[in-house]
Amino acid sequence: MGLIVQKYGGTSVGSPDRIRAVAERVARTRGEGHDVVVVVSAMAGETNRLLALGRELAAAPDAREMDALVATGEQVSSALLSITLNAAGTPARSLLGHQVRMRTDGAFTKARIQTIDDASLREVLDRGRVAVVAGFQGVDAAGNITTLGRGGSDTSAVALAAALEADVCEIYTDVDGVYTADPRICPDARKVDRISYEEMLELASLGAKVLQIRSVEVAMKFGVPIHVRSSFSDAEGTVVTREDDALESVVVAGVTKNDDEARVIVRGVIDQPGLAASIFEALAADNISVDMIIQNVSEDGRTDVTFTVADGEAEQAREIVEGALASSQRGAILLDRDVCKVSIVGLGMRSHAGVAAKMFRLLAEAGVNIQAISTSEIKVSCLIDAGQGVDAVRALHTGFSLGHPQ
Amino acid sequence: MGLIVQKYGGTSVGSPDRIRAVAERVARTRGEGHDVVVVVSAMAGETNRLLALGRELAAAPDAREMDALVATGEQVSSALLSITLNAAGTPARSLLGHQVRMRTDGAFTKARIQTIDDASLREVLDRGRVAVVAGFQGVDAAGNITTLGRGGSDTSAVALAAALEADVCEIYTDVDGVYTADPRICPDARKVDRISYEEMLELASLGAKVLQIRSVEVAMKFGVPIHVRSSFSDAEGTVVTREDDALESVVVAGVTKNDDEARVIVRGVIDQPGLAASIFEALAADNISVDMIIQNVSEDGRTDVTFTVADGEAEQAREIVEGALASSQRGAILLDRDVCKVSIVGLGMRSHAGVAAKMFRLLAEAGVNIQAISTSEIKVSCLIDAGQGVDAVRALHTGFSLGHPQ
Repeated sequence: MGLIVQKYGGTSVGSPDRIRAVAERVARTRGEGHDVVVVVSAMAGETNRLLALGRELAAAPDAREMDALVATGEQVSSALLSITLNAAGTPARSLLGHQVRMRTDGAFTKARIQTIDDASLREVLDRGRVAVVAGFQGVDAAGNITTLGRGGSDTSAVALAAALEADVCEIYTDVDGVYTADPRICPDARKVDRISYEEMLELASLGAKVLQIRSVEVAMKFGVPIHVRSSFSDAEGTVVTREDDALESVVVAGVTKNDDEARVIVRGVIDQPGLAASIFEALAADNISVDMIIQNVSEDGRTDVTFTVADGEAEQAREIVEGALASSQRGAILLDRDVCKVSIVGLGMRSHAGVAAKMFRLLAEAGVNIQAISTSEIKVSCLIDAGQGVDAVRALHTGFSLGHPQ
Repeated sequence: MGLIVQKYGGTSVGSPDRIRAVAERVARTRGEGHDVVVVVSAMAGETNRLLALGRELAAAPDAREMDALVATGEQVSSALLSITLNAAGTPARSLLGHQVRMRTDGAFTKARIQTIDDASLREVLDRGRVAVVAGFQGVDAAGNITTLGRGGSDTSAVALAAALEADVCEIYTDVDGVYTADPRICPDARKVDRISYEEMLELASLGAKVLQIRSVEVAMKFGVPIHVRSSFSDAEGTVVTREDDALESVVVAGVTKNDDEARVIVRGVIDQPGLAASIFEALAADNISVDMIIQNVSEDGRTDVTFTVADGEAEQAREIVEGALASSQRGAILLDRDVCKVSIVGLGMRSHAGVAAKMFRLLAEAGVNIQAISTSEIKVSCLIDAGQGVDAVRALHTGFSLGHPQ
């Protein structure tokens, strides 16, 4: 007997048949005596269809209106699942962002949740109903519809679980958990049974698409256990939880590859105080996230500054740098979009020396040249040639003995 | 300089190109110095697509959830039109039922508007923006999304025009006004320049699909002039207005045919007080609207009761009568779905005797047998064989000299 939040992604509600399967699972959970709050994404493909419609009508469509537009995707799936549940004898009610009082800031297309007033949800649950909440959407102080950014339904679910002090937030998706590496790259990749918030955060930031980063942050902040599992099977998935509870505190938990990377090289920057700041302040002002930064040693009073950004923002980043530095202050600005980032993540790194060195050695043995390096307490990332990404991931996955025993 | 409410139907916003055309017209109206409130329907076909999805998941889908489902259609078109207006330099904001505080009762799928709080609308207009309101939808006292029934966007528009005391409510559709008869049946049918609310009400009730009945009722109650016109041309359409202002107070304003009719014949009903009441109370309890009723003179203590209902409710009506009267109280119950209703409508009938008689004579001359008759102050309807409907309309249209002079 508890309170369980279940979130179903786009493929899990992608067709009437899939919606029926979800309804059966929800009914089963309720049959075990639990209160259930369901959070749904838009049916697979629907958000992209709506975005394309909006973009067909305007090159730079109004952000407020785009949020009102795409929020309909989750409204449709929450209504359809409620219809299915009610028809099957499980009383249910759909609730939209404004009905569940999911208050966000006013940053359209990437709003952040500020408060949730759980009164309407409690009322639905108290009447013995399943609450089916449209994910991804909220409402700002002025009553405008906002959305939480791609994958935002994960965050909706975790935030609701936190507000309701749910026992667990189950995230149903089309994979059955978190793996030591992408199984399409490493066939011997192993499903991880438990993993810490910190590791999951790094994995999500580094290209593992299982969970939205923000949802892991919220879960960590409020101590909500997340259970990532498949809506296509009953197998246990991966539990994301506090470090103490994450039993497998291994040196390296997983290897990731992120292809959404581009390298911007600013040649011949005059090496005087404040020039680097000018570059990165200008990028920050336009909300471009910079990942790795390398500044070479100065030569003849000039230096090269290299940094990486998301591939989709590379052109914009180059233009911003062009605007920020007069051509007399710098040489050419080069763009290299043919790069990827491979990373290893693991809590154990904190207490084990030499993990980074071992990574560099494994890459060298695989003939992979490292273009840039960045590290945190629990991860090491290397920027490499895009064409060598698969080889690099395999070499690291094998070298750190992450796969199933052969 | 005034305030104009413009409502665009499903075909008028049925594609990105059509939405652009609507945006141009809105911008033009605004360019003439008017404040503009736009009300939009769902893109053509969208409501049916959503209804089909819901019905695929439940034979009798939950009404509250169906409303939440189909309301997304208008949300999408209001957002798309706002995106288009903003991109073209006309500041605009979409507003949903709950944002414009379109408060209705809680009768899902056929809610009625109770109040409109025009504060949010006024604020949008005061900032020099076009308000683009999602039609068809409202919100009940508990915050649930409701819808106003098929064609409900007309009513949304007229109700908003009433609340804002707009100068006119323009209803843009795919025909360019109200005609003396369906031009597909009578090629010489004439567009009517002005018509009274009363006549329009009768025409709408009798199968003319130009305006939702409820919208005409609201317009009449609050004295809102409606201008029915085509979104595909700039031609003047038909103005629906008070009787005093309706210049063409002709004897017969138009002829209509409604094929959505079925006749239920209850044979051999025991002729005792209360039996007819039992039939029609039972039908009313299940919200079946009965139109014509005929009770034959009694013979051997038994009589026949015949009534007409909408074709889609005929089977249900028969079952209700079967349940309401024991078989000992009645004979067989027959269903005749092969009927239609032709009607003539005109304010002038009130002061001209013999209009009904002329109608019956014209039908007789055309060889049309009349199965039932109903009349009001300003209309006469005859139930006839479905196969004779077209001939009947043509005979009446010609006989009352409604067409263009040849």
